[in-house]
Amino acid sequence: MKLMICGGTVVTMRNNEIIRDGAVVIEDGVIVDVGKAHDVKRRHAGAYERINAKGKIVMPGLVNTHQHAAMSLLRGYADDLPLQEWLEKWIWPVEGCMSAHDIYVGALLTAIESIMGGTTTVNTMYHYMPEENEAKAFADAGLRGVIGHVCFSWRKDEDRKALEDLARNWHAKADGLIRASVDPHAPYTVDPEYMKELKDIRVDLNERYGSEKSPIMWHIHVAETYDETEKIRRFFNVKVKDSVMAYLDSLGVLDDHVLAAHCVAFSETDMDISKARGVKISHNPISNLKLASGISPITRMLEKGLTLSLGTDSPCSNNTADMFQTMKVAALLHKGVNRNPAAPTAWQVLKMATLGGAEALCWSEEIGSIEVGKKADVIILNLFKPHLRPVYNEISHLVYAARPEDVETVIINGRIVMENRKLTTLDVERVMEDVERTKNELLDRARRNIK
Amino acid sequence: MKLMICGGTVVTMRNNEIIRDGAVVIEDGVIVDVGKAHDVKRRHAGAYERINAKGKIVMPGLVNTHQHAAMSLLRGYADDLPLQEWLEKWIWPVEGCMSAHDIYVGALLTAIESIMGGTTTVNTMYHYMPEENEAKAFADAGLRGVIGHVCFSWRKDEDRKALEDLARNWHAKADGLIRASVDPHAPYTVDPEYMKELKDIRVDLNERYGSEKSPIMWHIHVAETYDETEKIRRFFNVKVKDSVMAYLDSLGVLDDHVLAAHCVAFSETDMDISKARGVKISHNPISNLKLASGISPITRMLEKGLTLSLGTDSPCSNNTADMFQTMKVAALLHKGVNRNPAAPTAWQVLKMATLGGAEALCWSEEIGSIEVGKKADVIILNLFKPHLRPVYNEISHLVYAARPEDVETVIINGRIVMENRKLTTLDVERVMEDVERTKNELLDRARRNIK
Repeated sequence: MKLMICGGTVVTMRNNEIIRDGAVVIEDGVIVDVGKAHDVKRRHAGAYERINAKGKIVMPGLVNTHQHAAMSLLRGYADDLPLQEWLEKWIWPVEGCMSAHDIYVGALLTAIESIMGGTTTVNTMYHYMPEENEAKAFADAGLRGVIGHVCFSWRKDEDRKALEDLARNWHAKADGLIRASVDPHAPYTVDPEYMKELKDIRVDLNERYGSEKSPIMWHIHVAETYDETEKIRRFFNVKVKDSVMAYLDSLGVLDDHVLAAHCVAFSETDMDISKARGVKISHNPISNLKLASGISPITRMLEKGLTLSLGTDSPCSNNTADMFQTMKVAALLHKGVNRNPAAPTAWQVLKMATLGGAEALCWSEEIGSIEVGKKADVIILNLFKPHLRPVYNEISHLVYAARPEDVETVIINGRIVMENRKLTTLDVERVMEDVERTKNELLDRARRNIK
Repeated sequence: MKLMICGGTVVTMRNNEIIRDGAVVIEDGVIVDVGKAHDVKRRHAGAYERINAKGKIVMPGLVNTHQHAAMSLLRGYADDLPLQEWLEKWIWPVEGCMSAHDIYVGALLTAIESIMGGTTTVNTMYHYMPEENEAKAFADAGLRGVIGHVCFSWRKDEDRKALEDLARNWHAKADGLIRASVDPHAPYTVDPEYMKELKDIRVDLNERYGSEKSPIMWHIHVAETYDETEKIRRFFNVKVKDSVMAYLDSLGVLDDHVLAAHCVAFSETDMDISKARGVKISHNPISNLKLASGISPITRMLEKGLTLSLGTDSPCSNNTADMFQTMKVAALLHKGVNRNPAAPTAWQVLKMATLGGAEALCWSEEIGSIEVGKKADVIILNLFKPHLRPVYNEISHLVYAARPEDVETVIINGRIVMENRKLTTLDVERVMEDVERTKNELLDRARRNIK
């Protein structure tokens, strides 16, 4: 398909470049030209499907680097509870009864919500099942994603099989939309030996199914709460000083294919090790506040030059997949907590939600900015709304005022997956009805404690 | 007009009561019946305009207790700056050039944004001008509001005239939609003598234009930043210990008609004095974070039983009028900062945004809940959206997941002011065009430094 987006303000996210009255040309899923509309039109006189973006913002799709997509089935199921009670009495008993189909339906709902909120790539960690799974859901929705299987010490055999199946069947599949990842749950739920094995598994799977351009990542929760080093000591009887990253580094598992989510209880040592090893960070401010985990020191990480990205975390601990809100909260929270209104800036946060996210997923050669040669993951926002008037500065509006509903058009891999807020890939009403039925059946099984 | 809303889940905000398959009957602007739909239908067989709310939430409109509505003209004009630079170099020079018409147009935009976000009452503090003003804008939009004139020591004569004009022409006017208030800017910009005079002016205006049911309030910024007591000492050469409230109390100005906005640098003493005098609190978490003022200790205020409400503050320091987002940030911020996921609860925050807001404005006899005898300020939300599926708990969705666009219908004073997201009172597109033109003219005057 040949597509030309004309007349909008193109926020490229390449060197903070903004092109007013710009144009973007897409051919076969790839961006082939970007520039001033009158120049681009001269260079491309052929037959293009045209999108008029006059008065609108054209920008790269948002990248959500930490999700558990299937958990949308439990959105609002339990809130305002102490963490252990929440997990043990509410979340885990129901999750234990989730079927492959439940996971598919939950992920489908999150995929729809993500696209409708201008998110074009989602990194999700959940239980992979061969029959039905999050990978299939994302592919069906036309959403780009990294699909991980979450690993625990108590189910190593199951994990090994799941990882093999996931990598073989899904890595670099669905027109390159889907990538696989190896996801150790956390340093306190994966024992040291298994942690090392999971690194080896990643390297092995990457050699067999990945490539330099399309690597298989490692995605792990790190230092989400302040008691993590204490838990590691207690559970595995190992010596751990106050740095989770020092512990992981002592196992030899850290490298530039690791994405660490949360990093709340994160010291200077943790940051320095992350920087030295090339570890990427996913910041999840809304979830960290909701679960009362604490506040990740991201302004210090920005100063140290770490690769920072943003995640919503699961629909249970957020309770939406709204990356605009995540940008706003990320921008405001650290100003307030550090008593400095100047940091982070709107530009810094917007970068975290786009190019930073792509870098965090080792995917920035293909996505994260509007540049010639990259895959066309592009969103178009309508600014002609009362809450976005007047316009002085588009970047300010994107971070401090825009909402999911302002996204009109979403293009992923060169395919229009949402047009005028209508999905082209799925029947949204039917999915919502499926979700309600699926949730009722799940709750019924959970009550009767049936797998 | 006779109106019956049938079949929804009615969140009354009276004793946390939720009525499933409920109905609300409105006659001449007043709620005359609330209950189970089948009972209500039996009691009211006459000819009613009917709204089918099946599968929807019916609830009282949100109450925003701290705004500077006209400042929407400067939304996104300057962000991410140190407070003094932001005020002195950016905001004040432009504000100094604002005309009565600018104020009207800015307030009109905020009124539209508020209604479209389910807010039915707004308390706004700005410069009142007789020719055109925020009161006229709210009345034209059909929005309920308390309109204040902000007072400073440097313009006492002007203030006195403005307050008289505002109270005479607008208090309890426009079918009772509009009330007037006396708004000393802050303890550090209003000298002690003038502060006392402004209390006397409020009492005098209230005697002449107000009533017990419809009092004229006092609305003031209090303890927004940590240096406020120091500023008061320096500017007015008075003795002030570390409590702003103790200082105000020593002037004799505190009573149960005072609404204090922000209360960030707020000690136990400040809270105890507020409680003893019946002072009401407006919490503005988003603005406090954005301007890096700090974090108001509202969980402690809740424990002490103070009257708490929520405000967005101005569109310059937020940058929207979105009360759903304000609820979510209020709920999450304090969990995160206090490391307690259980407080505040969604119910507590929803109360702050509805009945608490009405109580804070001394208006709870008429608004803030869906009860027989109260004015009909009612909103209807559509839950059949991907980000609101599935539904376990409506209160959770209202606080943690809902957005302005989920509000379909807004009724204020019994009048449908928005239906299917279309305003019935104003031409929104035309206002948006006016805003752009008005803003350009304002900037042009500011550049040339012309009043």
